[in-house]
Amino acid sequence: MAKIQYLKDIDKGYVDVIAWVISSKRINDREIEVTLRDSTDVRTLKLVSDDVKLINEIANLPKESIIRIIGEYRNSVIKLSNISTLIKASEELPVDIYSISPDDVEKFVKYSYIVIRRPKYAKVLKIQQWIMYYAREYLYKQGFVELLPPIISPCSDPGLRGARKLRTMFYSHEYELTSSVIMFKQTAVASLEKIFFVARNVREEPIDNLKTGRHLCEFTQIDIEWAFANMWDVMKLGEELIVYVMEKLYQNHKDVILEFNPEFKIPKKPFKVITYDEAVELLKKYGIETPPGQELTQEGETKLSELMGEEPFWLINFPRTSRGFYYIEDPDKPGYNKDFNLILPKGFGELIDGGEREYRYEGIVKRLQELGEDLRKYEWFLELAKIGIPPSAGWGLGVERFTRYVLGLKYIWEAVPFPKVPGIVPTP
Amino acid sequence: MAKIQYLKDIDKGYVDVIAWVISSKRINDREIEVTLRDSTDVRTLKLVSDDVKLINEIANLPKESIIRIIGEYRNSVIKLSNISTLIKASEELPVDIYSISPDDVEKFVKYSYIVIRRPKYAKVLKIQQWIMYYAREYLYKQGFVELLPPIISPCSDPGLRGARKLRTMFYSHEYELTSSVIMFKQTAVASLEKIFFVARNVREEPIDNLKTGRHLCEFTQIDIEWAFANMWDVMKLGEELIVYVMEKLYQNHKDVILEFNPEFKIPKKPFKVITYDEAVELLKKYGIETPPGQELTQEGETKLSELMGEEPFWLINFPRTSRGFYYIEDPDKPGYNKDFNLILPKGFGELIDGGEREYRYEGIVKRLQELGEDLRKYEWFLELAKIGIPPSAGWGLGVERFTRYVLGLKYIWEAVPFPKVPGIVPTP
Repeated sequence: MAKIQYLKDIDKGYVDVIAWVISSKRINDREIEVTLRDSTDVRTLKLVSDDVKLINEIANLPKESIIRIIGEYRNSVIKLSNISTLIKASEELPVDIYSISPDDVEKFVKYSYIVIRRPKYAKVLKIQQWIMYYAREYLYKQGFVELLPPIISPCSDPGLRGARKLRTMFYSHEYELTSSVIMFKQTAVASLEKIFFVARNVREEPIDNLKTGRHLCEFTQIDIEWAFANMWDVMKLGEELIVYVMEKLYQNHKDVILEFNPEFKIPKKPFKVITYDEAVELLKKYGIETPPGQELTQEGETKLSELMGEEPFWLINFPRTSRGFYYIEDPDKPGYNKDFNLILPKGFGELIDGGEREYRYEGIVKRLQELGEDLRKYEWFLELAKIGIPPSAGWGLGVERFTRYVLGLKYIWEAVPFPKVPGIVPTP
Repeated sequence: MAKIQYLKDIDKGYVDVIAWVISSKRINDREIEVTLRDSTDVRTLKLVSDDVKLINEIANLPKESIIRIIGEYRNSVIKLSNISTLIKASEELPVDIYSISPDDVEKFVKYSYIVIRRPKYAKVLKIQQWIMYYAREYLYKQGFVELLPPIISPCSDPGLRGARKLRTMFYSHEYELTSSVIMFKQTAVASLEKIFFVARNVREEPIDNLKTGRHLCEFTQIDIEWAFANMWDVMKLGEELIVYVMEKLYQNHKDVILEFNPEFKIPKKPFKVITYDEAVELLKKYGIETPPGQELTQEGETKLSELMGEEPFWLINFPRTSRGFYYIEDPDKPGYNKDFNLILPKGFGELIDGGEREYRYEGIVKRLQELGEDLRKYEWFLELAKIGIPPSAGWGLGVERFTRYVLGLKYIWEAVPFPKVPGIVPTP
């Protein structure tokens, strides 16, 4: 039998609710104060009964027990007619749900199956759903078709900046787990022209990346691709999506947003743009060196984010050698790509990675070879490139990073159920 | 530069469109008839020009070349002012996009990267997007929260009826790829009560299952779970979702639906219900035996579907021994579960699998042991069960199977981009 009422519904009159016990405080023989949670609310309620046995039963319940309360609510008190214990939780929990800290990342992720019960994190997940809902709404309105993403294939994105792809055996054949869906995107736009995947990616990150607080080994991207578009078209799309989602969140969920992030601010379009070379020069002035031909260091990116102000900004035209095989070189700026990152303010880091694609067979082969990849693994994609791939541009936006940013969360492992972080195993 | 016009927009006046060449037929020096496709339409257009070079260029283009056409459309003819070849496709394609048949499954799946270009299959994928859109719309309205699903974890669903879970190494620890998200669902309802995942599952199916035409090794489930609900609650939800989605599809996409499936019919609620025992008795009358304590045979399920008429129906109360560890035994019917399948008519097979869950620690341990599973792999879930899992009910609905059913497709590999089918490797 499904629930009659939720905690948020409790008002004067009849009560029939099922909820989890957070804590209880006996007042006397016939009165007890309980703090309860369910998916809608946390409430502290005074329960009274002439039947001492009912009060005893409640008083003896460990935290996380599940109880059904039937009675009448009047003058801030529930007069019980009956209670029923659905689940008596174990006496000792392995961790205290309400004091476990995300600063203690090992404990936090190993006990993700308990952390999810904390009302704070249930709220995060509800907001995450709305982020996805509004993002889809925006992309559908722009005519993008959503496709179901694969999770294994013979070859996945090799451009992982030090992270390793995971492997598996599938009918005795070695396959890779999706590190990104880039090749599927370029394949799909030859049919549907404007597409996106909501793709789960898996990467074994360097263990050091745990320290950044923004790396997950399993993460979700809204991964779009647009045939015949250029980088400026898709950058504009990205800005508009971000602002659209944030406006809708503020419009429809203001209380929760401000509860988490009193400094929540919708960025102003258009976002500022700075080139890689300009950024490297600027950082030099502050004593930060960037290794030639490579992406900015973490320190550099953080400093740059500080210098660029309180708004997200685009960092464009990376050196070719620093990036994945699928970015195309700028014919007007040899050695540099037509690509971009969107960097969030206040050290929240990179949110979007994208650019115009290499779509010519010879170009793809050359770049795969430069990366030291085994071309035989990429057989189907190279066959496709010989047939002809349309020029396109696209990007991937990190859903968990976006969630973290809008809610102002300290760590990315607070922004996903069942987080997997660099170096910590096993976790659910 | 993104496209100015799409093929469906071409009407009197200015034309500036980018499209793929399907075929061309030269009429004379100055006239050529081309059949073009893009994401919106397939059009056969007559192009004329006084500049013979333009007509020559078009005439020499192989299939799948991408061309930009600028001109003026008047009296069923486009008077060209300019053309531009964006991509000249290779002279020979490895397969002919328009004649490749899904009956030839090996070819069809190995060349999925080309098959996706066929307008028929682009339409299938657009309908699939709308199926997901309406399903989400319905579940959100019912208060279900969508969560992002994991794709690797220490232990995944072992109840796979002969299929094998895939493995991978993650920081030197053996993990499994998601075969289903059941454990995560039971974990999440202890917080959010009404949840769902749109979960990609991977299973190495027995090679024989290729013959059924309805097995994929990678498939997507809308996987819901509802705390404190019983099987009838979630069966009702399932019926309502199916009817809601089909009504919306018919309302908003009737032309495409009927083009694929002239016999499209929205089922009437409530769906019929038959128990496993009743089904076994009925099949005996037709000379079909069911191995004791096991699910119906494929032959049996197909015959039953025929006998039950033109509508989907619920098959309930399976023998405990035939099912996964997470189904709970019916205390009023020992040896049988409180579980169900939804079987589609006309041999389309099982669409939904679900039931009330085993939520007690001792019950879960017993059932895992019966299945011969190594309890150490399930450590986190068993710890959770000790703390206390709420009673719940839920189900998984196969998105590709639902797509196949509404469109009346012959095989399931027509209902997903980049299909992976039993025994055929490698495919994209």
